[in-house]
Amino acid sequence: MVVVHENNALHHVVIIGGGFGGLYTAKTLAKANVNVTLIDKRNFHLFQPLLYQVATGTLSPADISSPLRAVFRKSKNTKVLLGEVNDIDPEAQEVILGDRTIHYDTLVVATGANHSYYGHDNWRPLASGLKTVEDAIEIRRRIFSAFEAAEKETDPELRRAWLTFVIVGAGPTGVELAGAISELAKTLKEDFRNIDTTETKILLLQGGDRVLPHMAPQLSKVAKESLQKLGVVTQTNTRVTNIENEIVTFKQGDQVEQITSKTILWAAGVKGSALGQVLANRTGVECDRSGRVIVEPDLTIKGYKNIFVIGDLGNFSHQDGKPLPSVAPVAKQEGEYVAKLIQKRLTGQTLPQFRYNDVGSLAMIGKNLAVVDLSFIKLQGFVAWIFWLVVHIYFLIEFDTKLVVVFQWAWNYITRNRRSRLITGREAFGEATTVTNDVPLTTIKVQEAYKVGV
Amino acid sequence: MVVVHENNALHHVVIIGGGFGGLYTAKTLAKANVNVTLIDKRNFHLFQPLLYQVATGTLSPADISSPLRAVFRKSKNTKVLLGEVNDIDPEAQEVILGDRTIHYDTLVVATGANHSYYGHDNWRPLASGLKTVEDAIEIRRRIFSAFEAAEKETDPELRRAWLTFVIVGAGPTGVELAGAISELAKTLKEDFRNIDTTETKILLLQGGDRVLPHMAPQLSKVAKESLQKLGVVTQTNTRVTNIENEIVTFKQGDQVEQITSKTILWAAGVKGSALGQVLANRTGVECDRSGRVIVEPDLTIKGYKNIFVIGDLGNFSHQDGKPLPSVAPVAKQEGEYVAKLIQKRLTGQTLPQFRYNDVGSLAMIGKNLAVVDLSFIKLQGFVAWIFWLVVHIYFLIEFDTKLVVVFQWAWNYITRNRRSRLITGREAFGEATTVTNDVPLTTIKVQEAYKVGV
Repeated sequence: MVVVHENNALHHVVIIGGGFGGLYTAKTLAKANVNVTLIDKRNFHLFQPLLYQVATGTLSPADISSPLRAVFRKSKNTKVLLGEVNDIDPEAQEVILGDRTIHYDTLVVATGANHSYYGHDNWRPLASGLKTVEDAIEIRRRIFSAFEAAEKETDPELRRAWLTFVIVGAGPTGVELAGAISELAKTLKEDFRNIDTTETKILLLQGGDRVLPHMAPQLSKVAKESLQKLGVVTQTNTRVTNIENEIVTFKQGDQVEQITSKTILWAAGVKGSALGQVLANRTGVECDRSGRVIVEPDLTIKGYKNIFVIGDLGNFSHQDGKPLPSVAPVAKQEGEYVAKLIQKRLTGQTLPQFRYNDVGSLAMIGKNLAVVDLSFIKLQGFVAWIFWLVVHIYFLIEFDTKLVVVFQWAWNYITRNRRSRLITGREAFGEATTVTNDVPLTTIKVQEAYKVGV
Repeated sequence: MVVVHENNALHHVVIIGGGFGGLYTAKTLAKANVNVTLIDKRNFHLFQPLLYQVATGTLSPADISSPLRAVFRKSKNTKVLLGEVNDIDPEAQEVILGDRTIHYDTLVVATGANHSYYGHDNWRPLASGLKTVEDAIEIRRRIFSAFEAAEKETDPELRRAWLTFVIVGAGPTGVELAGAISELAKTLKEDFRNIDTTETKILLLQGGDRVLPHMAPQLSKVAKESLQKLGVVTQTNTRVTNIENEIVTFKQGDQVEQITSKTILWAAGVKGSALGQVLANRTGVECDRSGRVIVEPDLTIKGYKNIFVIGDLGNFSHQDGKPLPSVAPVAKQEGEYVAKLIQKRLTGQTLPQFRYNDVGSLAMIGKNLAVVDLSFIKLQGFVAWIFWLVVHIYFLIEFDTKLVVVFQWAWNYITRNRRSRLITGREAFGEATTVTNDVPLTTIKVQEAYKVGV
């Protein structure tokens, strides 16, 4: 086992995770007098807020990804390391990867969160979540395969099941997915000969009493009405009690209902990534029910001044008593704060506690339809949609000049085209689960039941 | 089993395969007084000549794919069917899919070809071919993972193996891959901290006596010199005799050599797709040694005036005695010819035999470097490169207005950026073959050893 020490006396900051939290920590440290190692399992940062556009065939994965090495090309104090951290030793100040151990002076853990299926992990293969590029490709495969299968189906009941989409969870991802599928169904109308894609049924189930619960109540109302106009049926105060044999069972009060659907998508629940539990075991720090690490006012963990937890993996409740939401702006501001605090400390100083500056939130519902909730103004409809577009383009450009995405949006908007609607990953579609093995791989075992995708 | 008859008296043309041959047959028939069914395993046409740009991280798969339904949206006589043909019954005039049987009046088989490993199918998993989007993603994963692994490797010999790329076959694909990897290595120079990516070694092995053997000899010479300038070592008259344990053994005359490489790519050999053999068994038609179907002067097969075989699956030798090359323009012209012949026949007429109008050929070697072989002029260098660009953009725009690709190229050219360099498909990289199962799938068996990609 190689133990890697930085071979000079500079303070070594190790950042685990290249999401918004880790990325902004490293960017803010880029000119500081420290060495930085950024570790991620993937070689790219993913702009997760637009992942639903990959899942619905508007953008390609590369459009919303930035290669980490390219982002930090000019930051000569920063090393990018592709690898997965399995363990952390807070006493020896080391992070442990499969093939090496890296010593840190300061550690920033920003590995984010996954979906929670609320104890029903058997639902996971039945109801796709949307966290990774692979998730998006899988959802894209399922959605477009469903229309293909409906086109071929002669039994009207099965055809209806193929044209029924159930989305669990009406936060931003659930709402944006529902809206995008509805727009997609309209776009595809002329492409099919046997089905009318506008007969597509989209059911959005929400546990709480309104959609987009992190926004102002009047915007939730607008969002629900906008969805209704798009043909999305929204049902609030509703809990999913079972998913089995392509039937979703759900309960609203005492009323139990069932719906048959071939495409069930999961946009609910949060579960801190595995390193949260590792930290808990190693340091005694507390995690909340969702597995997120309870952090101190300065984003460190109790008893370890040199370990920070930021972004979706952290539970920061020192502002108004309830945890900050799991959104990109929180992770970004936390990363910037931590980077500044590290630099202050090097000169013997410190910073006041972290404070989140709520910049507001926004959600795209459909073409020309969005809701924007800012502290000073609330927008809806076309104006909100333009605002949404500008904000996202601004953020995308900030760390990677992807003007192409702008062209692409504009182009797709004008042509109503879904150019990225490849069914890949598995050549088969719909219920067929045949896996062919014409893709060369290094191990036979993997080759047998593996099909790479796009 | 459903037997689908078109429910009116129109002549029914069934086309199997949505590559260049099938696509242009269907397009040319779009306004004819026939019913057309276009069957493909995939829901998109792939612009294969640019696939190497996906494999080397410049373009996304969707940039070079056109959804078949979108292409034929306005062709109301054309049905697109996503499915795989397993069998053909020439007496009953039916094609047989897994779930249905379709009756045809005229059948056009255009299912193309795969790579041949010359009887060494055990090399397939060791040396990736480049035919499908999944192949391109797999090669992209291997190439970018190799640089990542080299960055982490401390043993100089292993590091060298990671930075060594062997490409077997110096036709257009092999030459373009070699050039693109060399350009990539230059682009990545500043992104890594421990390795100098410009030390990358690229070996291009060719069985024949020159690269790009389908072009004029003086252009082969130019291409070889251009490759040399890019640092690619080309070795002609060389046969690969073994691939094992990441060692390629090859023979030039009596001289046997070996090279250790972690990334071996296969761009040699042609093998007609499986339907060629099906046709041979069902109709007695002859196939050549590569499994391509020997066709008559009018592209039908012997004894069956209503079955055409076009594109890479066909062996047409009625022009100058040797088979037409397996390139897109041949398939395109054959498709157009067949479509016209079908229409002529409906009025009791016919056409003279098929003649290929050789429009010339071209290959991109590197930035500002290409070779163009036209009947009336031969171009090289920057002029050829611009010509290459214009021709490809023209073809891409012809059936799908993808101006975006133009922007993307221009942008990547200016910024020297490789934006599509995602390592996906498997989260691990290099020699690691760990397959995680966080992607929800419908069957557990598949889920266990499966990881979709992008």
